[in-house]
Amino acid sequence: MTTRLAIIGAGLMGEDHARIFAQEVPGATLQVICDPDNNRAAAVADKFSAADVATDAAATIARPDVDAVVIASPDFTHADLTRQCIDAGKRVLCEKPLSQKSSECLEVMQAEVLLNARHVMLGFMRRYDQSYIDMRAALTGGKLGRALMMHNFHRNVETPASDFTGAMAITNSAPHEFDVVRHVMGVEYTSITAHQPRRSDSRVAPVVMVLETSDDQLVMIEINNNAAYGYDVRAELVGEAGSIAINNVAYTRTDSRFTSSTPYDADWRSRYADAYRRQNREFIRFVETGEFPGIASDAWDGYCAAVVAEAGVRALESGQTSPVSLIEKPELYA
Amino acid sequence: MTTRLAIIGAGLMGEDHARIFAQEVPGATLQVICDPDNNRAAAVADKFSAADVATDAAATIARPDVDAVVIASPDFTHADLTRQCIDAGKRVLCEKPLSQKSSECLEVMQAEVLLNARHVMLGFMRRYDQSYIDMRAALTGGKLGRALMMHNFHRNVETPASDFTGAMAITNSAPHEFDVVRHVMGVEYTSITAHQPRRSDSRVAPVVMVLETSDDQLVMIEINNNAAYGYDVRAELVGEAGSIAINNVAYTRTDSRFTSSTPYDADWRSRYADAYRRQNREFIRFVETGEFPGIASDAWDGYCAAVVAEAGVRALESGQTSPVSLIEKPELYA
Amino acid sequence: MTTRLAIIGAGLMGEDHARIFAQEVPGATLQVICDPDNNRAAAVADKFSAADVATDAAATIARPDVDAVVIASPDFTHADLTRQCIDAGKRVLCEKPLSQKSSECLEVMQAEVLLNARHVMLGFMRRYDQSYIDMRAALTGGKLGRALMMHNFHRNVETPASDFTGAMAITNSAPHEFDVVRHVMGVEYTSITAHQPRRSDSRVAPVVMVLETSDDQLVMIEINNNAAYGYDVRAELVGEAGSIAINNVAYTRTDSRFTSSTPYDADWRSRYADAYRRQNREFIRFVETGEFPGIASDAWDGYCAAVVAEAGVRALESGQTSPVSLIEKPELYA
Amino acid sequence: MTTRLAIIGAGLMGEDHARIFAQEVPGATLQVICDPDNNRAAAVADKFSAADVATDAAATIARPDVDAVVIASPDFTHADLTRQCIDAGKRVLCEKPLSQKSSECLEVMQAEVLLNARHVMLGFMRRYDQSYIDMRAALTGGKLGRALMMHNFHRNVETPASDFTGAMAITNSAPHEFDVVRHVMGVEYTSITAHQPRRSDSRVAPVVMVLETSDDQLVMIEINNNAAYGYDVRAELVGEAGSIAINNVAYTRTDSRFTSSTPYDADWRSRYADAYRRQNREFIRFVETGEFPGIASDAWDGYCAAVVAEAGVRALESGQTSPVSLIEKPELYA
Ligand SMILES: [Mg+2]
Ligand SMILES: [Mg+2]
Ligand SMILES: [Mg+2]
Ligand SMILES: [Mg+2]
Repeated sequence: MTTRLAIIGAGLMGEDHARIFAQEVPGATLQVICDPDNNRAAAVADKFSAADVATDAAATIARPDVDAVVIASPDFTHADLTRQCIDAGKRVLCEKPLSQKSSECLEVMQAEVLLNARHVMLGFMRRYDQSYIDMRAALTGGKLGRALMMHNFHRNVETPASDFTGAMAITNSAPHEFDVVRHVMGVEYTSITAHQPRRSDSRVAPVVMVLETSDDQLVMIEINNNAAYGYDVRAELVGEAGSIAINNVAYTRTDSRFTSSTPYDADWRSRYADAYRRQNREFIRFVETGEFPGIASDAWDGYCAAVVAEAGVRALESGQTSPVSLIEKPELYA
Repeated sequence: MTTRLAIIGAGLMGEDHARIFAQEVPGATLQVICDPDNNRAAAVADKFSAADVATDAAATIARPDVDAVVIASPDFTHADLTRQCIDAGKRVLCEKPLSQKSSECLEVMQAEVLLNARHVMLGFMRRYDQSYIDMRAALTGGKLGRALMMHNFHRNVETPASDFTGAMAITNSAPHEFDVVRHVMGVEYTSITAHQPRRSDSRVAPVVMVLETSDDQLVMIEINNNAAYGYDVRAELVGEAGSIAINNVAYTRTDSRFTSSTPYDADWRSRYADAYRRQNREFIRFVETGEFPGIASDAWDGYCAAVVAEAGVRALESGQTSPVSLIEKPELYA
Repeated sequence: MTTRLAIIGAGLMGEDHARIFAQEVPGATLQVICDPDNNRAAAVADKFSAADVATDAAATIARPDVDAVVIASPDFTHADLTRQCIDAGKRVLCEKPLSQKSSECLEVMQAEVLLNARHVMLGFMRRYDQSYIDMRAALTGGKLGRALMMHNFHRNVETPASDFTGAMAITNSAPHEFDVVRHVMGVEYTSITAHQPRRSDSRVAPVVMVLETSDDQLVMIEINNNAAYGYDVRAELVGEAGSIAINNVAYTRTDSRFTSSTPYDADWRSRYADAYRRQNREFIRFVETGEFPGIASDAWDGYCAAVVAEAGVRALESGQTSPVSLIEKPELYA
Repeated sequence: MTTRLAIIGAGLMGEDHARIFAQEVPGATLQVICDPDNNRAAAVADKFSAADVATDAAATIARPDVDAVVIASPDFTHADLTRQCIDAGKRVLCEKPLSQKSSECLEVMQAEVLLNARHVMLGFMRRYDQSYIDMRAALTGGKLGRALMMHNFHRNVETPASDFTGAMAITNSAPHEFDVVRHVMGVEYTSITAHQPRRSDSRVAPVVMVLETSDDQLVMIEINNNAAYGYDVRAELVGEAGSIAINNVAYTRTDSRFTSSTPYDADWRSRYADAYRRQNREFIRFVETGEFPGIASDAWDGYCAAVVAEAGVRALESGQTSPVSLIEKPELYA
């Protein structure tokens, strides 16, 4: 009763997923590693003892010896490949984003709604991070009173590409915040404004967004892709009766040269190692049982993240508050 | 060579200033405690061994046995009393705000500029808080690179009056942030936006402001007058190369009932006890030497705080970005 | 190529190991759950889909469909069962302690040395805790200079049994510290002293030990089995040039009622969940490859812990410094 | 009604006391700065506007224009000068230690008891540190249950002199811990053991002491005079129901180069600036009112610190537990 997986995409994230399923999650075997670059697929397959390699994604999804699919190919292919998985009746864990275009997200939802059955789990892994789990539990448990505000800070060491823009900060980095804040607070956004200071060099400057929610709350999101000092994700949920914030989890502190210091992570992979493992374990349970995991993201969540990102880009470009409007939520995702 | 002080106003802050000068700052004696309520003046005078009491502020300021004045009367009287001190050629430490009306601040500046000599020190005591001193030194010292953003959080346990409004949060509480951010970053504001979530009760909800500066930086300020959990002021200065943040200074941590906890202050007086003492010591030096203290606030700073607060109230009411525009800075304050 | 495991003992730790191998560690299947109480064995087998149950440990170890063994039965049975595994040529993960009697540990070593091959991995899981891993890396990396001292604090909420004694604190709780300190510092002990304050109730009071090492360092160990406030393990390694300490890893902090607080764990299982998972994954690799994991504890380590615990009990009873002397280390464990 | 002070000794601590009384404590004037080196006395007198300078301590103490005395001369002169103050009927703030010889402390007490009036306040300023004040209040308030243990760590950057010894660590540095632990816990010591690891260089190695108290508690004290990383004083008071520990008070944290760091002080003067100011203010009140301050150290406390230090040195030299025995406490100090 082992789930035979195909991993589509053998880049950084594809390799990470292969490793996680091979070494951290019981119940799954790597059946196919698929990448247009055959050598890259073979290298990952070798490293984690996958049964086979392939270069054609569509054919791989269709294989009868593939029970479920993990999509870790380039962003623009996510929506189309996810639809192919749905059409083949296979459950799929799609890396974020589902699509940067909300229209493509709608098409995925249509395909899934047509089958009237859950097929798509979306890789917004932060929902599985212990800090956000604890925040949500504190809110649900009533310790904070009603939620009023959530402050969020996403900081990378530096942008991967020198041509990174403020709009890309909103469409590529911010969706993690867009999704996890909706999840923790249990609301939808209604509007967004965006600001950007000026850096003295050619790197992309931070973007600061203020969003309003359907329950008249405020959400502040800073995306700082060139924070220089470390990979650092902060969040504070402010309730009417108290507040809860994420700690920088550090296992030790070092006393040296007149300072006491704790380390930051270099990137998201060490920071969210636990979250990825939990998420992927839940995906295997989903494949085995057909029950969609209680806290996972789905195609609707991918759509919501795309809509607010599109509004955020408009807000940044216009300097005006931009409304966020969603279609009615299909019953499948209720 | 002791400075003989008059304290105008024997309320909460007036009594605190009397105590600080009597018990914490050498070189000053309490000559007069002045309050329209003679009993109140007498109680404070008694407690801290002041030489005399009075009920008439104007007459007190004019007394030949008064070398310098501390104004801690109601806000609306500050500007007028300060001008009287200037006209009497006496140095004055005026509690914040100089005035909530920028027009009145202009009048005070005119009076001071006319004499072409510094008379007014304004009680924005946060500039003397060690945390802000360290932040400014880190920026000046180059450890953070150029400043990009400053995030500020001002939290009170609860509003003093039940009819406190969002506009009052901007005019009464935010000026501390308006002033200290200008001071730490060394810039002026050019625009402000303001947002407010909805509380489920009748207390005033937080106000979140985003300001732009003359050097194209962003400043975020949250004023939460009903934060419930404690008096808590946070700030983080984000530079292009690193970041510095204020700690909650707590002297001990307690392990009990499955938590490790550190205390918050109940209000600003314990939190800023050191800052008040340093500020007031600097005021006595100013009186003694005539040299205006390097980091103190002056009438220009009071004017700047009033202008941005007025713009903030317009922004909150209109939902639009509101420009902040200042007169040219008089040479006296250069 | 899946490892078929027998779990001997279906109590708290046996069930935990069953869960870890079933849900967290790929490459293993639960072949037999063995417990003298057949119902208890069946309950665990059921919960984690084990293939079979048994009541006879010796027979279970001998089964041809069992590739490797996990011993989680009562402490006094560990040494004998471990020897049976060695004699059967099967690799075994034995929960700590190997034995409370150093003489029994010697017998296990003799059996293993006779085969001249590693069979025994001992469950001192703290070596796999990220904090200790980081401490050891800091020392090895030269950041601290030569190690001078290590301070250790082991605190439980309360003793499991009301007849717990100071001697039991040394023999049952302290071995974790005895082992991990040896591992982190890379030394052996040469002497031990032990002190105990008086509690005002009938619960067992803390024990404080000071040990000297073969490299003339000092080790302080506090065992406080009734610390009341939480499960809390602290350690600080003090070098000649700097210091490194374990943090209380907490994912969030909560601001409420005039305090900022972070949670403590209730017991060791949540605190060391990661360490157990890593250790058990390493055990499966050991079974698969025959290569003994670089940082795991072995029979020699079990012997060393038993010897120092015996000396510690003598020190507590006599009030005198007690020497710690070891046999020469067999080559197998070099 | 201003207190006219003589400061005996114009070294580091004498200058600090002159500064504190001149700039931080109202109600005192610097009447005489006395030092055998007239230039040194004159430099300090100049800097803080003292009225006069002198080179003869005995004559200075006797001057009719001196109301009270601060002794900050070399340690070996403290007891004799303090007795001269008592004999002259003048109140004295004597820097720690009263004497390193308990016999000399007895002589001071005899002189004070003879007058049957408090004259001597001893400069164990830690009692005025907010952290210890909070610890004591937590214990008294019942939050921790009965005190069981106190762990103390005193760390300097490096020894002032290269010929510093372990015995000197006990007699020069540890008395602060000896005194403040007695004060916080409200007990006396009954025995002491001392251990010392070996450093790889010629600097003095740390000393670790374990003391027992009259209420069967344990006190651990580490004195590490070459800790290298900073000036750092830690303490944890462990009660039967909970624990309280001193924080490293840092006003900011800096995020830079993959770490979050907070600063350590370079030495005790910045760390205990508040404590010195409070202590010295209390001394002036004592001089003014004759009421001995509730929490200050006195000659009895100086004697107790000397006795335990003498026992500590014996313990370190002999490797044996050394008893601590005190004379009966004179009624004056009850
Ligand atoms: Mg981290
Ligand atoms: Mg505080
Ligand atoms: Mg923890
Ligand atoms: Mg400090």
